[in-house]
Amino acid sequence: MQYSNNSRIFKTHLNKSLFVILTMAVLGMGRATAKEPAAWVDPFIGTSNYGATFPGPVMPWGMVSVVPFNVTPAQGNEYSNTDNWCSNPYVHPNKVMTGFSHVNLSGVGCPDLGSILLMPLTGELQVDHAQYGTTYSQEEARPGYYTSFLDRYAIKAEATTTLRTGISRYTFPKGEAHILLNLGHGLTNESGAFMRMVSDTEIEGYKLMGTFCYNPDAVFPVYFVAEFSQPALNRGYWKKQQKLPGHRHSWDATSGTYKIYNNYFKDMAGENIGAWYSFNTEEGEQIEVKIGVSYVSIDNARENLRAEQSGFAFDETAQSAWREWNKQLSTIEVEGGSDADKTKFYTALYHLLIHPNVLQDVNGQYPAMESPDIHQVTDRNRYTVFSLWDTYRSVHPLLSLLYPEQQLGMVQSMLDMYKEGGWLPKWELYSRETNVMNGDPALIVLADTYLRGLTDFDIETAYAAMMKSATTPSAENKIRPFNDFYLKHHYIPFTKDYDNSVSEALEFYVADYSLSQLAKALGKKEDHKALRQRALGYKKYFDKNYGLLRPVLPDGSFMPGFDPVQGENFEPVHGFHEGSSWQYSFAIPHDMPGLIRLMGGQKKFIQQLETCFNEDLFDMGNEPDMGYPFLFNYVKGEEWRSQRTVRDCINTYFHTGPAGLPGNDDTGTMSAWLIYSMMGFYPIAPGDPVYTLSSPVFDKVTIHLDNSHYDNDQIIIETINNTSENIYIQKMEMDGQPLNKYFISHEELVTKQHFKFHLGNTPKK
Amino acid sequence: MQYSNNSRIFKTHLNKSLFVILTMAVLGMGRATAKEPAAWVDPFIGTSNYGATFPGPVMPWGMVSVVPFNVTPAQGNEYSNTDNWCSNPYVHPNKVMTGFSHVNLSGVGCPDLGSILLMPLTGELQVDHAQYGTTYSQEEARPGYYTSFLDRYAIKAEATTTLRTGISRYTFPKGEAHILLNLGHGLTNESGAFMRMVSDTEIEGYKLMGTFCYNPDAVFPVYFVAEFSQPALNRGYWKKQQKLPGHRHSWDATSGTYKIYNNYFKDMAGENIGAWYSFNTEEGEQIEVKIGVSYVSIDNARENLRAEQSGFAFDETAQSAWREWNKQLSTIEVEGGSDADKTKFYTALYHLLIHPNVLQDVNGQYPAMESPDIHQVTDRNRYTVFSLWDTYRSVHPLLSLLYPEQQLGMVQSMLDMYKEGGWLPKWELYSRETNVMNGDPALIVLADTYLRGLTDFDIETAYAAMMKSATTPSAENKIRPFNDFYLKHHYIPFTKDYDNSVSEALEFYVADYSLSQLAKALGKKEDHKALRQRALGYKKYFDKNYGLLRPVLPDGSFMPGFDPVQGENFEPVHGFHEGSSWQYSFAIPHDMPGLIRLMGGQKKFIQQLETCFNEDLFDMGNEPDMGYPFLFNYVKGEEWRSQRTVRDCINTYFHTGPAGLPGNDDTGTMSAWLIYSMMGFYPIAPGDPVYTLSSPVFDKVTIHLDNSHYDNDQIIIETINNTSENIYIQKMEMDGQPLNKYFISHEELVTKQHFKFHLGNTPKK
Repeated sequence: MQYSNNSRIFKTHLNKSLFVILTMAVLGMGRATAKEPAAWVDPFIGTSNYGATFPGPVMPWGMVSVVPFNVTPAQGNEYSNTDNWCSNPYVHPNKVMTGFSHVNLSGVGCPDLGSILLMPLTGELQVDHAQYGTTYSQEEARPGYYTSFLDRYAIKAEATTTLRTGISRYTFPKGEAHILLNLGHGLTNESGAFMRMVSDTEIEGYKLMGTFCYNPDAVFPVYFVAEFSQPALNRGYWKKQQKLPGHRHSWDATSGTYKIYNNYFKDMAGENIGAWYSFNTEEGEQIEVKIGVSYVSIDNARENLRAEQSGFAFDETAQSAWREWNKQLSTIEVEGGSDADKTKFYTALYHLLIHPNVLQDVNGQYPAMESPDIHQVTDRNRYTVFSLWDTYRSVHPLLSLLYPEQQLGMVQSMLDMYKEGGWLPKWELYSRETNVMNGDPALIVLADTYLRGLTDFDIETAYAAMMKSATTPSAENKIRPFNDFYLKHHYIPFTKDYDNSVSEALEFYVADYSLSQLAKALGKKEDHKALRQRALGYKKYFDKNYGLLRPVLPDGSFMPGFDPVQGENFEPVHGFHEGSSWQYSFAIPHDMPGLIRLMGGQKKFIQQLETCFNEDLFDMGNEPDMGYPFLFNYVKGEEWRSQRTVRDCINTYFHTGPAGLPGNDDTGTMSAWLIYSMMGFYPIAPGDPVYTLSSPVFDKVTIHLDNSHYDNDQIIIETINNTSENIYIQKMEMDGQPLNKYFISHEELVTKQHFKFHLGNTPKK
Repeated sequence: MQYSNNSRIFKTHLNKSLFVILTMAVLGMGRATAKEPAAWVDPFIGTSNYGATFPGPVMPWGMVSVVPFNVTPAQGNEYSNTDNWCSNPYVHPNKVMTGFSHVNLSGVGCPDLGSILLMPLTGELQVDHAQYGTTYSQEEARPGYYTSFLDRYAIKAEATTTLRTGISRYTFPKGEAHILLNLGHGLTNESGAFMRMVSDTEIEGYKLMGTFCYNPDAVFPVYFVAEFSQPALNRGYWKKQQKLPGHRHSWDATSGTYKIYNNYFKDMAGENIGAWYSFNTEEGEQIEVKIGVSYVSIDNARENLRAEQSGFAFDETAQSAWREWNKQLSTIEVEGGSDADKTKFYTALYHLLIHPNVLQDVNGQYPAMESPDIHQVTDRNRYTVFSLWDTYRSVHPLLSLLYPEQQLGMVQSMLDMYKEGGWLPKWELYSRETNVMNGDPALIVLADTYLRGLTDFDIETAYAAMMKSATTPSAENKIRPFNDFYLKHHYIPFTKDYDNSVSEALEFYVADYSLSQLAKALGKKEDHKALRQRALGYKKYFDKNYGLLRPVLPDGSFMPGFDPVQGENFEPVHGFHEGSSWQYSFAIPHDMPGLIRLMGGQKKFIQQLETCFNEDLFDMGNEPDMGYPFLFNYVKGEEWRSQRTVRDCINTYFHTGPAGLPGNDDTGTMSAWLIYSMMGFYPIAPGDPVYTLSSPVFDKVTIHLDNSHYDNDQIIIETINNTSENIYIQKMEMDGQPLNKYFISHEELVTKQHFKFHLGNTPKK
């Protein structure tokens, strides 16, 4: 294990293995030879190295997760949301936790949610999260379950979830015990909360969240109802009082302090508020708290809670979550490969299924997009958290293959958003458009899904929505504010320092290409032609002196002062977003032959691409270049370079252990890349339902297809001579016939049944 | 006019006179010879010199008032709630206002409420009350109506009320106009608010208030619904964002600033929040905003609003308020006296009828005392704001005489509080016990009311409640924490610097005496005797070396280091609360003969009392000594001194104009003193239904009695030879018979019909 020198983590995993064995024994599911897929999942993967995943329990596509929050500034916390950039509630190297947050984002790059925090304490009541933090030990996590021991308070904390609710179980020592519900603490930069004690055992409220990536308009309320398994001996609220101005501060002893309300149980509101419940516990006494969440209303949060957890049944709830994860993860079975491979693979599949997540309540209600209205779905899910600039590349194509019902639900959700808010989403977060990142990625997802054969959605509305975005003039265009110039000149000019002009345009090219392919499929020839033409505008950016893309001024000349490596590691850069020209210059998936010609032919292209890898100009963690390893496949005889590079990337950037991801998982985007790459195929050209091939990691992969969308039951990918040295494809077969190409269509993948890869240790040139 | 050198005020009053004439013309009520009583009221009286009254409209016993808020720190504001002690939302000498608050207290000594502020603006939207203040002019007020012109914005603002709702009318110039609803601004030191836009024209919410006199437990929510007469062109919220800690501050541009929410209309919560509504107005365009309030729920606030103001009818609403005030003020008719006398008198009567005020909603619901429960009254009012340490002395006896139905409602409300919260109130504020001031004043009010013949309440419950307070040991006694020592030794010992031991005990003596009188009336002889005995414990404090009361140590010896004048002007003092020994030493209303004996007989008593007045040791604004002017009546032949002193006090401490009160009105306590004194009788001994007499100011006073509680229709007090020099009583008649005593019983007052005072300019010794 790469991280075995970290004794705490090592211990964790020892414990976890033990736990899994025990769990399997309890559930009567122990099989000596084949672990259940969920047992391979390590929820700690991605919780370090900015992976931004979380170890707390969550259901597949779940609304609620219960996540240990450990990014409060404290001695022992290497990273904090105050002093460092923390876009996640939990960072594995940290040591001090301050509660369990019930709404969380996995693998995103900006802090939000990470709020509605439960915290158990013993001893004297404390309500200031800057003071009540504790180290923890005996930490274990598996799909649907998390536990740790809170050292300072000698409390064993456990958590599990249903789709829209969480439940925590705290095992207390003898003495004074408290459970805090803190609404003034968390990741989100928004604040403002309300709560009301309904009874001895029930409290309801809401908190405003949002301002994701500092977009001030993207705010939304989260409602909750919490229930305690037993009435508190004493209870009340607290509020950090504003420091009163002038002499008023000296007149009011509570000014600027945490005020404890001992005898007030009605409505409470403020910025930094919470509720405390105090108990006298016996040694080993357990108190459970369940929380239901809704993005519609408190009533719906209560309905969710009552529907999904009628009583207090922690163990059964955890077992249900475990079963559901096994069910979803069983879509792919793998054989062979190392234990580490299986852990990486199933954890990636686990991370794939966290976002987009269900938004609607059990009654079907959800907040409409960019609207105060409440709408309702009846026979499908409404999804939220669409990080589309990331996910169009790998997440949605993979969902189309593995979970077509959910992918269609997501596409339908995107169309809902268009109907409700007037525009397709770009980076949608709980029905608010955050406008984060570039381009027009919804078009790619919609076209790609349709062209993969998942056509069971209102394509007329979809096409209208896509064309609206593609053709509306700048002034009225919420997605494409540069459309006037772009429609005329087919590029976006560099107009001010550190703009994202090239990145923005590259995204539009892929989007317009995707739309052109859809237009073609729908028989809209003129649209097809015009959009296809626009998508070739990338050529304007090509500077043959560098063999790279370079920002272009409004007059068509290149931006002076170009530095092709500027932009690495998030340094500001002219024309590119979060990356250098190198990380964007090969990102022309819709016209690789054209790019190869521009670059001076196949040989020069291969040289340039090799340079990118050899000189460390490639960034695995940045989406625009994540397809690069496969691009050698575009030159006949050079495919071995892709096989080598893909395998290199799998081994270099993806690991078991907390630092196992090469940066933000980007709501599953990195994980989806890994899943594809380990299976030996990759959707290299969004909008073209095509896969390019490389050598699988496993001896055998069985993909169980959803029969309501695909005719075949399964796809088997078999690997012959699969050893760690044998990474090169010697020959391939498709349903027993020789397969002599490194690109296959989605159609071929899902209608054929058996792919065989014969591997060896030497490149086949 | 005493304040005619203040040109703004002078102008105000000129305008007001003009307004009254116009109003009378409009209402068809113009009578050349007799103004309506409401026309004599000057709501500006008491708005300076710490009177703490407000000029905004309110109904008799009204839940809602709409008060210009001008105590924000600003250039031109001599007093502010930040830099000075401001217990009121409006101070007349100030010049800059920042809105109109909808829940307010009149005449109290600590800041609270003064919140839910409406503010109209023009020009660019501003939301920071520290920035948007404006001077104002053309200020006018009358019962039920207030107007001023907001100079900076050229807006004419007008306000009126119903019992539980307010309505404001803003006349805008042409251009951009805004109306703010600010929940983050106001007098109360509590914070935390919630609001939700229901529609284009409706918003609902609540704010936490309380911490009255810095009692941290005395908090309560106030709910509201606001409706606009027309939909806004644009609208949104704002919130003063918390300053984020560490680097987070630099990452979020809104950190620590007033964030404007342009596109979010759902639930908003926080400390310093508000809503803005923007319009494009034509010159002279009027927009009205009505606000309904409830202390139970938002739904009830809406029900109150719809019931009391179904549409937008500003003028009719103002006329209704005016009519209601005339109706209530007509209980007393006065003839003769100067215009200033009538203004002082009717304004005092106006101030008498502001608190206690109605608490229940139109559906009868109200928040139960010290409880999260909601209770309901059906056939009577539930009252709140009981400043009983003040009001038992003058307000409640006067209400018993003039408004017996309301007084009984208040008594019943006090019994409700006992049933709900376990204890009678002391200083009750919106169903929270604030525990402000000393003693056990509820006993005095209950006994006094009963003994005045208003017996239509549950006297058994009342007696039980009173005895509970009088006899429960310290540890369990919420009202009398010193009861153990007091019950044993009949005094409260001085135990630490600046305690209020003597003041506290003096209050208990009066309370126990009142209860003893009630016990006697109820035939409970033993209680009567024991309580009467306790009430004589005051004698332990009498130090014959000073002829004054002096703190006593637990061992019975006097506190060393006694300074009988320490405590003037709120300086800290040992043993006394907000006053010197001089201001307490004659406050033995239940045993004046005993005190006179202690002081060395009638002559020495008169000397000592004269010293108090001559050496300026008397404080008209402090309740314990407010009966002093009448105490000369206890010595036969010296009554002329009371006539002189009372008249002196009326003229010295009470004026027309903003500085017309001698300090806090104390929810009508000072005003009630003035009403009594100007009519020529005063309830000198609480618990003894007796009045002592002095010379009336008016030629004729007609008190219309409530026939459902009193047999007589009216009492006439006629004054013969009434000139400004003739302040001494020469002889008196009662129903035509000579009246040769200076004390009459309540029974005599309400069963006789005609009192005649013959006055002259020489004392009758």
